[in-house]
Amino acid sequence: MGRWEPDTRGRLERAAIELYLEQGFAQTTVAQITRHAGLTTRTFFRHFLDKRDVLFVGMDELTERVAKAIAAAPAAWPAIKAAASGMNIAAAALQLRRDEAQDRRKLINTTPELRERELMAFAAVAKTVDGALSERGTDERVARVTAEAVLAAFRVAFEYWGEHPDRELPQLVDETLDELKRALGSDA
Amino acid sequence: MGRWEPDTRGRLERAAIELYLEQGFAQTTVAQITRHAGLTTRTFFRHFLDKRDVLFVGMDELTERVAKAIAAAPAAWPAIKAAASGMNIAAAALQLRRDEAQDRRKLINTTPELRERELMAFAAVAKTVDGALSERGTDERVARVTAEAVLAAFRVAFEYWGEHPDRELPQLVDETLDELKRALGSDA
Repeated sequence: MGRWEPDTRGRLERAAIELYLEQGFAQTTVAQITRHAGLTTRTFFRHFLDKRDVLFVGMDELTERVAKAIAAAPAAWPAIKAAASGMNIAAAALQLRRDEAQDRRKLINTTPELRERELMAFAAVAKTVDGALSERGTDERVARVTAEAVLAAFRVAFEYWGEHPDRELPQLVDETLDELKRALGSDA
Repeated sequence: MGRWEPDTRGRLERAAIELYLEQGFAQTTVAQITRHAGLTTRTFFRHFLDKRDVLFVGMDELTERVAKAIAAAPAAWPAIKAAASGMNIAAAALQLRRDEAQDRRKLINTTPELRERELMAFAAVAKTVDGALSERGTDERVARVTAEAVLAAFRVAFEYWGEHPDRELPQLVDETLDELKRALGSDA
C-alpha cells in the first residue's frame, strides 16, 4: 500500500457496504465501489480478491488476534476460559466498530451467498481456536468441542446483538456462554 | 416413484458415492452415475436436484426425524436432554449404515465444494433443533445456543468416528457432550 493512501482499505470497505445495502450485493460491481470510494479498480484488487472478500478480510485478521490471545492466556486456565477470552477480543473489536459491524451483519443475513461464505469463515475461526487450544496442550477432542461450543455461543450472541444493538457484544458472549453452561448443567 | 423401482434412490446413491470416490466428484457426471446404476438420467432427476444433492437428501430426512423426536420428548426433560435424544436418533441411523456413512464422510472431507454444502446442511439441522426446542417452550436464546452446542458435539463426534470407525456413533455423541459439559464446568 502506498504511503499516500491512508485507510484506503477502510474507504473501500465502507463504500462497498453502503452500496451493497443500498442497491443489493448482486447488483453492485467493483467499478461502482471504487468510483464511490474515489479510487481505482486496481487499488481494489490490491486489497481484496473479489467483492465478497471485502466483507470478510477483517474477520481473518480478527481470527489471528483471537489465536494470539489464546496462546497468551495463563497456562493454568482451563481451555474454556482461554477460548472465551480469545473470543472476547473479537467481540470487543466488533463493539468498537458497532455500526459497521451491524451493517455487515444485516447485509450477510439477507444475502444467501454471503451467509454461505460466513459459515465457512466461522468454521475457519473454530479451526483456529481448536488449533490454539491444542497448542496449549488441551486434549484433542476437548479442544475441538470447546472451540465449536465457544464459536456457537459467539454466533448466537452476535445474532442477538443484531436484535439488541444497544447491548455490549462482549457481555452478550459471556451471557450466552453462561446460558450454555446452565443448559448443559441442567442434565447433570 | 413407480412401484417397479424398489430402492431406486438407494441404487443411485450407492452408484454416485462409488464413482465419486473412484474418480473424484468433479470428474463424475450424472450420466455416468445413472449408467453405473443401470437407470436413466430422467430417473435421477426425479430423486435429486443435482449431483451434490445425492449426498444430502438423506440428511434432510434425518433432520425431520430429529425434530419429531425432540417434539416427542417428555415435557419435563431439560432442553439439552431433549436435543441430545433427537441427535441420537440421527447417530443411530448413521450407525446402522456405517460403511456408507463413512464413505460419504470421507468424500465430503476431501471435496471443498461438498464441505461447503455440508456446513449449510449442518446449519439447517441446528435451525431445526432450535425450532423444535422453541416449540417445547424453551427460552429463545437458550434454544439457539443449546441447538448449536449439540450440533457442535455431534460434528466433533462424527469426525472422531471417521478416525475410529469401530466405535459406535451414538456413544461417541454422548461422550463428546459429556466432555463439553466437563469443559464448560471447569470454569465454574
